[in-house]
Amino acid sequence: MAAAEPSDQTLAGALSHIDAEGHVHMVDVGDKAETPREATARGRLVMQPATLALIQTGGVPKGDVFAVAQVAGIMAAKRADELIPLCHPLPLTYVAVTFTPITPTTEGQPAAVEISATVRTVGRTGAEMEALVAVAVAGLTIYDMCKAVDRSMRLEAVRLVHKSGGKSGEWSGE
Amino acid sequence: MAAAEPSDQTLAGALSHIDAEGHVHMVDVGDKAETPREATARGRLVMQPATLALIQTGGVPKGDVFAVAQVAGIMAAKRADELIPLCHPLPLTYVAVTFTPITPTTEGQPAAVEISATVRTVGRTGAEMEALVAVAVAGLTIYDMCKAVDRSMRLEAVRLVHKSGGKSGEWSGE
Amino acid sequence: MAAAEPSDQTLAGALSHIDAEGHVHMVDVGDKAETPREATARGRLVMQPATLALIQTGGVPKGDVFAVAQVAGIMAAKRADELIPLCHPLPLTYVAVTFTPITPTTEGQPAAVEISATVRTVGRTGAEMEALVAVAVAGLTIYDMCKAVDRSMRLEAVRLVHKSGGKSGEWSGE
Amino acid sequence: MAAAEPSDQTLAGALSHIDAEGHVHMVDVGDKAETPREATARGRLVMQPATLALIQTGGVPKGDVFAVAQVAGIMAAKRADELIPLCHPLPLTYVAVTFTPITPTTEGQPAAVEISATVRTVGRTGAEMEALVAVAVAGLTIYDMCKAVDRSMRLEAVRLVHKSGGKSGEWSGE
Amino acid sequence: MAAAEPSDQTLAGALSHIDAEGHVHMVDVGDKAETPREATARGRLVMQPATLALIQTGGVPKGDVFAVAQVAGIMAAKRADELIPLCHPLPLTYVAVTFTPITPTTEGQPAAVEISATVRTVGRTGAEMEALVAVAVAGLTIYDMCKAVDRSMRLEAVRLVHKSGGKSGEWSGE
Amino acid sequence: MAAAEPSDQTLAGALSHIDAEGHVHMVDVGDKAETPREATARGRLVMQPATLALIQTGGVPKGDVFAVAQVAGIMAAKRADELIPLCHPLPLTYVAVTFTPITPTTEGQPAAVEISATVRTVGRTGAEMEALVAVAVAGLTIYDMCKAVDRSMRLEAVRLVHKSGGKSGEWSGE
Repeated sequence: MAAAEPSDQTLAGALSHIDAEGHVHMVDVGDKAETPREATARGRLVMQPATLALIQTGGVPKGDVFAVAQVAGIMAAKRADELIPLCHPLPLTYVAVTFTPITPTTEGQPAAVEISATVRTVGRTGAEMEALVAVAVAGLTIYDMCKAVDRSMRLEAVRLVHKSGGKSGEWSGE
Repeated sequence: MAAAEPSDQTLAGALSHIDAEGHVHMVDVGDKAETPREATARGRLVMQPATLALIQTGGVPKGDVFAVAQVAGIMAAKRADELIPLCHPLPLTYVAVTFTPITPTTEGQPAAVEISATVRTVGRTGAEMEALVAVAVAGLTIYDMCKAVDRSMRLEAVRLVHKSGGKSGEWSGE
Repeated sequence: MAAAEPSDQTLAGALSHIDAEGHVHMVDVGDKAETPREATARGRLVMQPATLALIQTGGVPKGDVFAVAQVAGIMAAKRADELIPLCHPLPLTYVAVTFTPITPTTEGQPAAVEISATVRTVGRTGAEMEALVAVAVAGLTIYDMCKAVDRSMRLEAVRLVHKSGGKSGEWSGE
Repeated sequence: MAAAEPSDQTLAGALSHIDAEGHVHMVDVGDKAETPREATARGRLVMQPATLALIQTGGVPKGDVFAVAQVAGIMAAKRADELIPLCHPLPLTYVAVTFTPITPTTEGQPAAVEISATVRTVGRTGAEMEALVAVAVAGLTIYDMCKAVDRSMRLEAVRLVHKSGGKSGEWSGE
Repeated sequence: MAAAEPSDQTLAGALSHIDAEGHVHMVDVGDKAETPREATARGRLVMQPATLALIQTGGVPKGDVFAVAQVAGIMAAKRADELIPLCHPLPLTYVAVTFTPITPTTEGQPAAVEISATVRTVGRTGAEMEALVAVAVAGLTIYDMCKAVDRSMRLEAVRLVHKSGGKSGEWSGE
Repeated sequence: MAAAEPSDQTLAGALSHIDAEGHVHMVDVGDKAETPREATARGRLVMQPATLALIQTGGVPKGDVFAVAQVAGIMAAKRADELIPLCHPLPLTYVAVTFTPITPTTEGQPAAVEISATVRTVGRTGAEMEALVAVAVAGLTIYDMCKAVDRSMRLEAVRLVHKSGGKSGEWSGE
């Protein structure tokens, strides 16, 4: 991930939300062009295998926990700018949240639900925060629905995995 | 964490937000007593050491990134029931979000900011989701403020570490 | 429904949200006791039989349209006081939204989805508006998801069917 | 209303918010052009004649109930995308909500308030949901303000009556 | 206003939202009793006499500008805790916003609209912020509706004038 | 400020949010071009000198009260259209809120914090309301954080000081 390592230049330029006197502000994007942008984030809700089994089969019509979490993630993406103080409002043109159950193959290993969110916009800044917020809220919604049986679930590895569009162009992480 | 392992009884009782026909609903807490409850959640935003150094010293008045993230976490806790579909509205009586920078002692190790949120209420159900939402939003706010220099940051180990109050009483995780 | 006919007394007493000078205000409920209250509202989204068939079987995993609408209705109930200007904020203790498909038995008759929402609270005023808002938003969510195939759907008969609790006690409509 | 009848093609194409695997998502409108669009929705709050008389004359300065409902409808239109899960955020350029009292000419007939909402935007998708949400919330606001005298009011015939703009062009219903 | 002068004790005790290390948090009110509380705030939107005349008579049905501002103030009071970061959520039991036009008696003097908001709750902390937010938002709503004819309007003297209830008891300002 | 005096023409044209029949509506801006626009508003929170000293030095790390108020102001600017009923939603491209402490030079004079907010957008209407809302909410946030020591603070002179862009072009007030 060499691309993500702060260069001397960015170190010199410092953090973009903080001006010369240390006051925070929303970065000015008025001079940027409105271009198509996409961001994909991922994360993982780690849980006990019995919890995952319950989500998938335990007398519960398959998919309902995921359906609620999917809706929660999509709705949260649309409100990212209300949650993240310096995040710009963006006219989202597409949001999708998907889940992949990960069943452990070795005994004693935890199970997990892999969460992925892709957000697109035609705007002056990228939709990274919207995708990350969607993953976090979708994951915590699964937590909420299952916490009566498993309070030890953990949300892990919430990260940006891909972005494209805008002046900084394409970026991929792991 | 044996306490968190689903017992046969909870497996039989299935997920509390889903009724006998598989329809989701907000769990009825009307018969529960209004009692003092507290929940603490934690998480970790893992980043490059240079990013943490920049937050702490790079021409930036120390604490400003944290001040913004603190406010974001507190405000998000108050809106958890708007984000998490089946979460009950709760009259929060206390919210605090704190940060602990973790500088790596070994070269090549990542740095991190440990995030902790404690939420209290006097209500009919616990404030676990409020604490978890506060941690996630505070962490993503730091991400947002630093993403221009480090897109590879990851939010890790967002989890409940302690709760007290209510019928199920005290619970501690790692 | 004789019970609903305005009596001479209520005509004399006029509308409760409007004071002697005609200014609107939120009615003072501070002297009312906090008691358990419940309200059930219903409505009907009328549609073409082919639209209902599509929701139920057309390549779509059964229930997903309803799952989204269910979540939308529950979340809207929690925000009724943000939408209805003079509605009091209420700590909801239970919300459920259910759907019943109504297939026409006679050719040429429209199909429909019957929507029902039940809301409970322990508060100083009833949850009628929360139940009505849940029905309306759940119905419009189905409209939104199906409008690409049927723009002529109509939301009909959104009404209170039952309430209990509080000083005015039990009330039932059709 | 032949225009609204699902064609074989739309039946084959299925519901636009649901992908091949049955997962819901917000439809991608990124490739659509930003064009002027308008939508008008209507509905009717049916009530007892005495209730309508009270709104219009009963010691209440004429228009105040309508003024509150008008504001409620306009504000709700702006938040339609927060209520309807898969609805795109749209930069509304115009919203108007109007009311027409309908006094029964025959004894025993109910009275009503006809509600109409027109919404315009310059965007990548239409404002149908915004207009429908405005009608529903305006109608329920009147319900809220009058429910102390008439709990049996019903919101009827909430429907799209006209839309223009966008690729699908003009559409009119009844 | 001697009552408002910080005593040595409060100076020593410092600001209540900031802990020993300087981190902000929402003050813990969990140990306070739920008691009836009331707060009244006032402010003044100063404007040109012609602007006030226009609001009152200029072809506009009297009261409509005030009706919109009244609704805006009431709705904002209910959302004060979403706007003011460290403000507790409170179950408001009453909100009223009223306006008094002040016509200048001397030529060259400005006109004004005096805005007053009273908020009541039964809660663990007072509703001062809710009343102040209601006054500010009601005043700015009048500004918004009249700014096409008078951009130089000013919101002045937004202040708490009375509070009662809670441990600190009654307080009156000017 | 001759520029702000209502001309005969504007008097004749009346208030822009109110149509010929006196119904309020959101003004149609669909025909306006999307152009860069900027608005700056200011206000002043007047307080006792001891209160200002406490904010600046009293055991409190300098800047924390301001940091919270800054975040509150920025976040409120983004939600102005949710608070001000007839305000258009705008894609803000820049928001900054700054504070200037004003220490009295003469004994007996009050101290103050001068609040300034600048908002930019590329849109069909100006961002005046967003800037005014940011100032008011930032000021009330300082009030909230200091009210335990000084309830008599007042928010004064909240006004537009500059706007540019759009058909009406540049405007400056005092």
